Order: sequence, then structure tokens, then C-alpha cells
Amino acid sequence: MCDACVMNAVRDRMLSRRDLFRGSAAATAAAALATVAAPPALAAGHGGVADMTHAYDESFPTFSGAPGITYDKKYDIGSDGYNLYVLSIDEHTGTHIDAPLHFSADGASVDQLPVADLVVPLAVVDIREKAAADPDAQVTPDDLKAWIEANGAIPERACVAMLSGWAEKVGTDGFRNADDSGAMHFPGFHPEAAQMLLDETTAAAIAVDTLSLDHGISADFATHYLWLPAGRYGIECLAGLDAMPATGATLMVGAPKHRRGTGGPARIFALS
Amino acid sequence: MCDACVMNAVRDRMLSRRDLFRGSAAATAAAALATVAAPPALAAGHGGVADMTHAYDESFPTFSGAPGITYDKKYDIGSDGYNLYVLSIDEHTGTHIDAPLHFSADGASVDQLPVADLVVPLAVVDIREKAAADPDAQVTPDDLKAWIEANGAIPERACVAMLSGWAEKVGTDGFRNADDSGAMHFPGFHPEAAQMLLDETTAAAIAVDTLSLDHGISADFATHYLWLPAGRYGIECLAGLDAMPATGATLMVGAPKHRRGTGGPARIFALS
Repeated sequence: MCDACVMNAVRDRMLSRRDLFRGSAAATAAAALATVAAPPALAAGHGGVADMTHAYDESFPTFSGAPGITYDKKYDIGSDGYNLYVLSIDEHTGTHIDAPLHFSADGASVDQLPVADLVVPLAVVDIREKAAADPDAQVTPDDLKAWIEANGAIPERACVAMLSGWAEKVGTDGFRNADDSGAMHFPGFHPEAAQMLLDETTAAAIAVDTLSLDHGISADFATHYLWLPAGRYGIECLAGLDAMPATGATLMVGAPKHRRGTGGPARIFALS
Repeated sequence: MCDACVMNAVRDRMLSRRDLFRGSAAATAAAALATVAAPPALAAGHGGVADMTHAYDESFPTFSGAPGITYDKKYDIGSDGYNLYVLSIDEHTGTHIDAPLHFSADGASVDQLPVADLVVPLAVVDIREKAAADPDAQVTPDDLKAWIEANGAIPERACVAMLSGWAEKVGTDGFRNADDSGAMHFPGFHPEAAQMLLDETTAAAIAVDTLSLDHGISADFATHYLWLPAGRYGIECLAGLDAMPATGATLMVGAPKHRRGTGGPARIFALS
């Protein structure tokens, strides 16, 4: 249904630009598009709009271990006629954004991210096999090179996302995966992979299905310090990557828009 | 840029379904589409992805008059190496959602809204002329009938939005428009219009560019009490409606996804 809506909107828009088409082949194309590639054919395929966002509450795992959200019920329908909470939210909770300002003195705040960087091609780098064998695994330049070998160049302004398989652990201790000393063990981006993306691509964002752009045992947040001050942004605790193709999906990043924000819980969809 | 991304994704998806096409005309259409209706032609047109969200902070107008968000800077890059706020947020602040639970004892919370109801056709009901003459103006059944007369039936699962012109007042006292007694004067949906949409359409949501689904002087929240307990949702303080067509755009509602929420600040885009 929602799929068909988006498709219809795009199809209608394409058809409304018939005057931009040149030549009889193009006119034929427009006419055929209207009658052949109609919503029923599209709806018959896979894909559509997918939700890439974890629902969250006080029990959602956080980097610090403390609850990332608490609820103060300010009005209750029984006594006040309606329900309303005042929420206390650590900006870096749930499926959320790291804005450049999170790790820089004067980088863009979350409200300043350009809309053009919030609707972007999604490139999924699947490291599930090595992450299953080693929870400290990282996305390396070799993983990126293998992705490019298989899928072509990383698209302009892409979001390059690590699929480690961690999203399915979100309701368990395995998501933080802390050892007896408190050190966490989950995958992230190796700083050299972040540097390669900075040097060789226009990627707008990197995303992880874990709690941090850096892997859990990082002592220095090296990837955060490379990536965010460069004016790119991050997404942490992204859901649903296992259902996405390696390339071809579009990520729609509903970043929060509070001024001066260093990030915040986001609602993220994908069109595939 | 973002426009081209979405279009590319959809175009690629359409082309990947070439095997669904039947006959040589369709094959020609697909080929022509690839070479003629390419991103440059699309990007040359108007439309694309529009941001329908106000940026907000402590100064953003609220229904109560108290700040809807406050910031506690828990970590600072100077002393801690990174920036992070813990935010206190009244759920009904900024461009935000009213979930059914806001005005019902057991309605859907904001995290329970189906994704299919968050990517929906947008129907814009323009009452700017009468709102300019009377800030207590409301969307009435006659306004809806006039919209249908001009544009056809309200689409399935649509978001029916009131364009009153109020969004441009957001930085001024005219947004709340309180009189000496404290009563606010801004437009909203008349309960009879809400009832008509409940009876005659499958509209998933109503939206306003003001602080409340009910107009400011409402003493009883009648529209809230009709609409939300019926399982539909609302959007308040929507931005950007003046740039939208009456029909044909698709709204992508990035509702927050905290469990038990009665609503919350959202990031909303439109594809037109």
C-alpha cells in the first residue's frame, strides 16, 4: 500500500514531465510506462517501504548502560482527560544519529544536516560471517574493496552501512556483550575504512547495527574522531539491514530537528 | 540531489522488473526510460523531497506556553572530548505526532502506528483566505466537499492537511495569537469535518500547521476526542504545506518510536 503510494507519486511526477521528453521513442516510453509499468506490476515485486528503526524504551541497551530514556507522565487520561509524557532522552539512544557536532567543537548540529544527505543511496557491507566468529570484528578497507568489486563504485552521498548481524541481539545481553571487566565486544568501522571513505568517496554517512561507529573495545573512538569532524554523520543501532540488498535501496533518515543537537533518536525508512 | 536519488532508486527498481514487462512496446519503454527519462531531466523539474519539519528549541511556541524542550549538556567536547545533551521533551512539541493514545485510554501508542500509515498520500485543504480574515476559522465539511469537487475523492489512507498560512507566523506571537485573557486564536479542524472524514474516508491522519487539531479557542478538544480514539492519528505544527500541491504528494512521516508514547517530535518529508 505505502509502496504503491510512493511509486504512484514518482510515476505521476515522471509522467507530468512528458514535455521534457524528446522524440517519438520517448513519447512511446511515457505512454507505455503509464499502461504497462503500472502499480500492480510494481506491487507484485518484493521491496517497498521498510522500517529500519528499533522501538525503544528504558530497557533498550545503551553505550553507558544507563537507561537512555525515562518517562514522566505529566497528564493522565483518567484524571486530566488526556495522556502526555515529558521524556528525558539521552540524544544517543535507540536508532539514532551522530551529528558532526557530537565529536567536534563547531560541526553541524543534527538540525543542520542537509535534507539531501538524509535521503541517500544505501550500501550494505555484510560482515556477518566474520562478526559471528569474532565480536571485535571491524569493517576494513578490504571489506569496502570487496563490496566495490561486487557492486561497483559506492554511490554519491551514500550511507555505507555495516551489517554485522547485531540487530537481532538487541533484546539480549549479547548486544552490549560486556565482559567481566565491563569492556564491550561488538563490531564497528575500522578507522582505516572510515579514512578510505573520506578519501575516495562522497559518502554522507556511515551506519552500524551496533551501539557505536567504533567497535566496542575501542579505547579512543578513532572512527568517530575521523568521521564526524569531517562533516559526515553517523547512524547507530540501525535495524532491518538483513532485509536490504547490498545496493539499490534508498535510505530516508528522519533525523530529529532540535537546534544545537549533537544527534538524537531518528525514524528511518528504506525504499527498496 | 536527494530527488535524483529517490528517482534513481525507483527507476532502477522499475527497470529491474523488466521481466514483468510484456511485449516489444514495453521493452522499448524500459530502454527509452533508461536513456531519456534520466535523472538530469527529472532534476530539471520542480518538486523532489521537501522538508515539512520546523527546527525547534526552547523558543518554539507551545500550546501551554512553557518551553517544550530543555537541554542539559551532560558532556562537553572541551572537558570530556565530545558533546552530548540529555533532553527534556514534552511529547507534543514542534512538528509532532498525536497518537491515538494521547486522547484515549488504550489507543495505539506512537511506536504502534503502522508503517503503511506513515507513508501516505497528502491532501492539502487550503483555507488561507478565510483564516487571514478570521483566526478562529476551521476546516469545515464544505471545505472538504470543495476539495473533493476540485480534486476527486480523498485518497485511501491519506493525510488530510489544513493549510491555514500559520506556519509563517511560527517565530512570532501571532502563532499562539493569545488575547488578553490568554485564549489562543488560530485555525483548526471543525469536529464535523473530522466526523465526515471518519464516516466517509479511510484517511489515516489529519494535519494542521497550527498548535492543535482543534482551533485555538476550542474549550473541549472535540476534534481530538473524535479523531484519536477512532484509531487515526494527527500531526501538529506541520511546515511547508504552502509549497505542496492540493493532491499528488506523498508524505513520509518519521514518527518517533519510543514505546508507550502518546506522540512526539517527528521528522516529516514530502515527495512531490
